[in-house]
Amino acid sequence: MTTLAAITAAAERVRGAVRRTPLLNAPLLDRIAGRRIWVKAECLQVTGSFKARGGWSAVSSLPPDTPGVLAMSSGNHAQGVAWAAAAHGMEAVIVMPADAPQVKIANTRAYGAEVVLYDRATENREALAARLSAERGLVLIPPYDHPEVIAGQGTTGLEIAEQAAETGIDAADVLVCCGGGGLSAGIAVALEAAAPTFRVRTVEPSGFDDMARSLASGTRMRNNAATGSICDAILTPTPGQMTLPLLHDRAGPGLSVSDDEALRAMALAFHHLRVVAEPGGAVALAAALFRDDLPDQVICTLSGGNVDPALLTGALAATPA
Amino acid sequence: MTTLAAITAAAERVRGAVRRTPLLNAPLLDRIAGRRIWVKAECLQVTGSFKARGGWSAVSSLPPDTPGVLAMSSGNHAQGVAWAAAAHGMEAVIVMPADAPQVKIANTRAYGAEVVLYDRATENREALAARLSAERGLVLIPPYDHPEVIAGQGTTGLEIAEQAAETGIDAADVLVCCGGGGLSAGIAVALEAAAPTFRVRTVEPSGFDDMARSLASGTRMRNNAATGSICDAILTPTPGQMTLPLLHDRAGPGLSVSDDEALRAMALAFHHLRVVAEPGGAVALAAALFRDDLPDQVICTLSGGNVDPALLTGALAATPA
Repeated sequence: MTTLAAITAAAERVRGAVRRTPLLNAPLLDRIAGRRIWVKAECLQVTGSFKARGGWSAVSSLPPDTPGVLAMSSGNHAQGVAWAAAAHGMEAVIVMPADAPQVKIANTRAYGAEVVLYDRATENREALAARLSAERGLVLIPPYDHPEVIAGQGTTGLEIAEQAAETGIDAADVLVCCGGGGLSAGIAVALEAAAPTFRVRTVEPSGFDDMARSLASGTRMRNNAATGSICDAILTPTPGQMTLPLLHDRAGPGLSVSDDEALRAMALAFHHLRVVAEPGGAVALAAALFRDDLPDQVICTLSGGNVDPALLTGALAATPA
Repeated sequence: MTTLAAITAAAERVRGAVRRTPLLNAPLLDRIAGRRIWVKAECLQVTGSFKARGGWSAVSSLPPDTPGVLAMSSGNHAQGVAWAAAAHGMEAVIVMPADAPQVKIANTRAYGAEVVLYDRATENREALAARLSAERGLVLIPPYDHPEVIAGQGTTGLEIAEQAAETGIDAADVLVCCGGGGLSAGIAVALEAAAPTFRVRTVEPSGFDDMARSLASGTRMRNNAATGSICDAILTPTPGQMTLPLLHDRAGPGLSVSDDEALRAMALAFHHLRVVAEPGGAVALAAALFRDDLPDQVICTLSGGNVDPALLTGALAATPA
């Protein structure tokens, strides 16, 4: 189980490599929401998402003679692992679907990784990764079900606790964009020790609320569909084996928002916070803005900003300041 | 003359009110530029620009029984003064042209200010302001030629010095977006004491390089035109009486960039830093990206993010990641 000690150790390892992202706030955004909203802007993190934390934490915990690392991801985890491996002088192989966005493939290569493309229709990703790992001695870094990945994401929670104290926030719900639950679980463990009056609430896309249902039932529930939301970064089929128990003991009831609410949150983040959010990174802000059953003060993660410009352009046209 | 002591005193007054904005950097942006670029992201400042610093510094230095403050501005200075006055429980009257962007008028009102509109063609702004000031005892806060405004903007320089030390940057050119010169002069005074190996370079739109020419000649030169660049926030006719002497003794030669370069910098800031920049706030980043005659490492201000979404959308369409 991930502990505060593991998160504190990860925080030591990531120091100087990942960024202490700001806790943003905007009076005009608060007015729209009818509550005080603080935004932990992980879209400003190196590589554009919190995944740089978990990537660095995992890579830096490996023996220095590790031949290299391997990850399966079409997006933010790919970039986080590629960047961290390069900085450690370690080879990185990223298995990506051939139809992944060209810009994400190009960025992953730009961070120095070898990208191995596969055909989603005809090839088995796990078998391909297992073969590469065996042949070349590469260590697999999973996107969330890994102790050092969860510990790395948890460093976000330590910063939230510090920044809340600096800002005079003594209690709040902390809304976290949730896919497999690595970021949510890491923050929950960190806050339990560092800010026990804070409570994590996971936020997912409507129809893909496997974590909310799993938290309610106590067992790992699955989504009915694998696609069908613009929030691509957080469409995982089911909670992690490690993340659900951590969250079940610590988080409040899960929340969900519609794709349209995520788009409106992206537009309002642009207008009032001047940051770029991707849909899956904006769901927690959307809940903070549009859900009624929340306290007067909330903190939310804005967890990634690797967005197709056309998608944000459409959101801006639909949502004036 | 603005001194380090005045800036340090301003830093004490603005503490807890304005934000210590992050110093951002992106490996893929560095690759495009061919040099290391650090970005002081004042677009993430409260009210969306560094003008919150000067506004708060000036308002907080007034006697508490001051009836109110007055500013003439169609943009960022208006919002900075309106926000600061409201937080001090002080009335704010902002004289704005009737054809200013509706969103800037609406935001200035949303911060609690009384907006007095005038017709650029038929009314004299200075006479209107003088009458309002006399009738209602309002204190005028100029946009740059004011000691406490310059001292407030100079707090940006203290933060740059601190953050550069934390990051291990021991020498750099510091490129600053320049209109009347308040931000440039404040930063120059702060760095002279706090980071003497750093040198300020002003950056202006091509054709509106009154500061660059004034630095070269030693006297206040004027621009030939009042309009004709998209960089509306920094199209001042001539350097300030206070700012030019401060800069003449401290800054290197001034730089300038084209509107197209400013637009490309806005798009690259979106893609790689995930922040929203306005044209006048992006000129220093444009110089960092596109000028050849600069050192291997530069720091630049990204000084504001209050942009018309359509303008950024066009920039994104023209400049891929």
